[in-house]
Amino acid sequence: MTDDLERRFDDLWSSLRTIGLSAESGGYRRFAWTAVDDQLRRWFREQALSRDLSYKVDRNGNQWAWLGVPGEGGIVTGSHLDSVPDGGAYDGPLGIVSAFLAVDELRARDRPVTRPVAIVNFADEEGARFGVACVGSRLLTGVLAPHAARALTDGQGVTLEEAMTSAGVDIASLGRDDPLLGHIGAFVELHIEQGRALDDVDAPVGVATGIWPHGRWLFAFTGEANHAGTTRLADRRDPMLPFALTVLSARSRSAMAGALATFGRVRVVPNATNGIASRVDGWLDLRASDEGTLATLVQAITDDAVSAAATNGVTATVTCESSTPAVVFDEELAARVQAALGGVPALSTGAGHDAGILSAHVPAAMLFVRNRSGVSHSPAEQADPADLVAGVRALAAVLAELACQ
Amino acid sequence: MTDDLERRFDDLWSSLRTIGLSAESGGYRRFAWTAVDDQLRRWFREQALSRDLSYKVDRNGNQWAWLGVPGEGGIVTGSHLDSVPDGGAYDGPLGIVSAFLAVDELRARDRPVTRPVAIVNFADEEGARFGVACVGSRLLTGVLAPHAARALTDGQGVTLEEAMTSAGVDIASLGRDDPLLGHIGAFVELHIEQGRALDDVDAPVGVATGIWPHGRWLFAFTGEANHAGTTRLADRRDPMLPFALTVLSARSRSAMAGALATFGRVRVVPNATNGIASRVDGWLDLRASDEGTLATLVQAITDDAVSAAATNGVTATVTCESSTPAVVFDEELAARVQAALGGVPALSTGAGHDAGILSAHVPAAMLFVRNRSGVSHSPAEQADPADLVAGVRALAAVLAELACQ
Repeated sequence: MTDDLERRFDDLWSSLRTIGLSAESGGYRRFAWTAVDDQLRRWFREQALSRDLSYKVDRNGNQWAWLGVPGEGGIVTGSHLDSVPDGGAYDGPLGIVSAFLAVDELRARDRPVTRPVAIVNFADEEGARFGVACVGSRLLTGVLAPHAARALTDGQGVTLEEAMTSAGVDIASLGRDDPLLGHIGAFVELHIEQGRALDDVDAPVGVATGIWPHGRWLFAFTGEANHAGTTRLADRRDPMLPFALTVLSARSRSAMAGALATFGRVRVVPNATNGIASRVDGWLDLRASDEGTLATLVQAITDDAVSAAATNGVTATVTCESSTPAVVFDEELAARVQAALGGVPALSTGAGHDAGILSAHVPAAMLFVRNRSGVSHSPAEQADPADLVAGVRALAAVLAELACQ
Repeated sequence: MTDDLERRFDDLWSSLRTIGLSAESGGYRRFAWTAVDDQLRRWFREQALSRDLSYKVDRNGNQWAWLGVPGEGGIVTGSHLDSVPDGGAYDGPLGIVSAFLAVDELRARDRPVTRPVAIVNFADEEGARFGVACVGSRLLTGVLAPHAARALTDGQGVTLEEAMTSAGVDIASLGRDDPLLGHIGAFVELHIEQGRALDDVDAPVGVATGIWPHGRWLFAFTGEANHAGTTRLADRRDPMLPFALTVLSARSRSAMAGALATFGRVRVVPNATNGIASRVDGWLDLRASDEGTLATLVQAITDDAVSAAATNGVTATVTCESSTPAVVFDEELAARVQAALGGVPALSTGAGHDAGILSAHVPAAMLFVRNRSGVSHSPAEQADPADLVAGVRALAAVLAELACQ
């Protein structure tokens, strides 16, 4: 164990700090397959080579740095370097910086490393540019079909095929990679916590038990456009009213069920100050601890929406746009992680991660590092230096447990 | 009185029908100072010249067609040709088509026309492009300052100054036009009814008594952006919740007060499905029968918004963006209009009109033609052929009463 870890964390963190930083917002704009992303990927390659790790890009554009010869039973850690628009510094990069430092710790120990160890940078985790999250890990595991990935298009009309080709990836090679999956004996992703649970129990590090099932539903309320100044209330078919009632229904029902419901995106047609809307679309993001609760909640909120719509002469249609089943992380792996750490809080999360995608194919686990603000997908993410070091030490302990027999 | 008025109405109406018609929506997109508006203005000029009326564009871009020499005590009728986004066919154009046909009727009568008569097309009545309604009549009367008008900007960043200059208007000449106002002895605007009052009493035509006071208020709710999947309900500062509560408060309070409240325009930041909004802006359009009721209602809805915001850790600010006092149309003119029509229903309206702007400066009146659907600012506007002809005949009778001594 080295004793200048905090300084070395600072040094490594600083080398990444300005890449993709927006002076305007104070947040990061690190989108997949852009010039900024290229800087980040060069940084990853340099870190790998400077440590004498063998550097590889897999068939799907994910970057790998191997300690030892890649082979069966490898212990893999890492995360992603891309960000949401105006995201925080830690979401993703913390897992990769911590991984390099944890491998440094591992090599500085007395115990021989008996398995291959790898650090991975999964491409395009946030999906900020092409709209689909976890593209790198979804391609690797075959969850996302290559032809569907190639056709994804960004806001400027550039396809993912064009963007990856420009970045030098051989687009013909995309797809499920069984040999590489066969080399992953376990995947452990360290991530900044995206809530306040660790802060509440005053713990710097926790272990994930699973990812809540979640989905997105479009609630479309169709009424009748009319003049705001002349249409009697009794003659109105105003879709804004059942939309408002549904927002409140979703909140109160999710509170009662211990779930998370959010309407954060709205589209109003025609969206004129002096006109009753003809249509209001609201997107419900809903997450619950289990699939039964999620299904019951969606049905109850849908019933409320349909009923509120009918009262107002409006029609409501509800469409599921995406649905992700529950992820339960491998129990045996979680037990070994807990054993390595001497017991830390276990928590579940509502957010998707590459570890969640991989968990259906290989044993996967996640470590969370306390986020003092509890805020995520925002520059307000915040972690104490002591907690950052505690995260590296925890990850190193887990790697030692798994890779040193 | 000619007996083929219905056919002539059809002919004239047809010549206007396809201009700015959206095949997609079935509604009209006739926005000020666009190519479509230029077609409409050419149509107006052709109609004026084909009738040997003298055609003029005033200093503020409004079009005029004069029968006789413009001078003191002129009797003016007309309306506007522009539309809201996906508006109906009648709102505006009905007043101009009816005006041309009523002048035809007037000239076909035996009685000599002893006063100048004019038809006017007021520019940019709906304010759909630059956000301010009745720009042409507000400039003419000095209610809107030229420098403020010139700086108005559309959604593409084009200023009204640029748009009017491109359309050939001398922007240096904008402003209150006392000589022209001095030529308006009375202004009578015919308009499609924007509610169901005439249908309820089974009358094809009615006379306006006044326009309700009304205004627009921006309700801005500022919370905190956060991750929809990881932020506990207790930790959220979600501005969508007080917005929804305010929509419902505005509706129930306006119902109790016999007023009209509408939230038809919303802006959500950042408007992401998986993110709690940092800000929700909603615009309240509020109209009431008198100014005291309006002021009391705004205060009550503001109090509800502030209170709902505080409960949710959100701040609410309310800004009045525009406020229009009550309009009471000239009683003497209204009496003469009623006399000319042999008595028709009198009604007030919540909608603003050029006649309302002019009424503070010259005697003004409005005729309404029954709208079978009661719907306005929508392609669903609907008028019976017999009612359209009744409107022209009523307007011709009023012009005869006022212009033929």
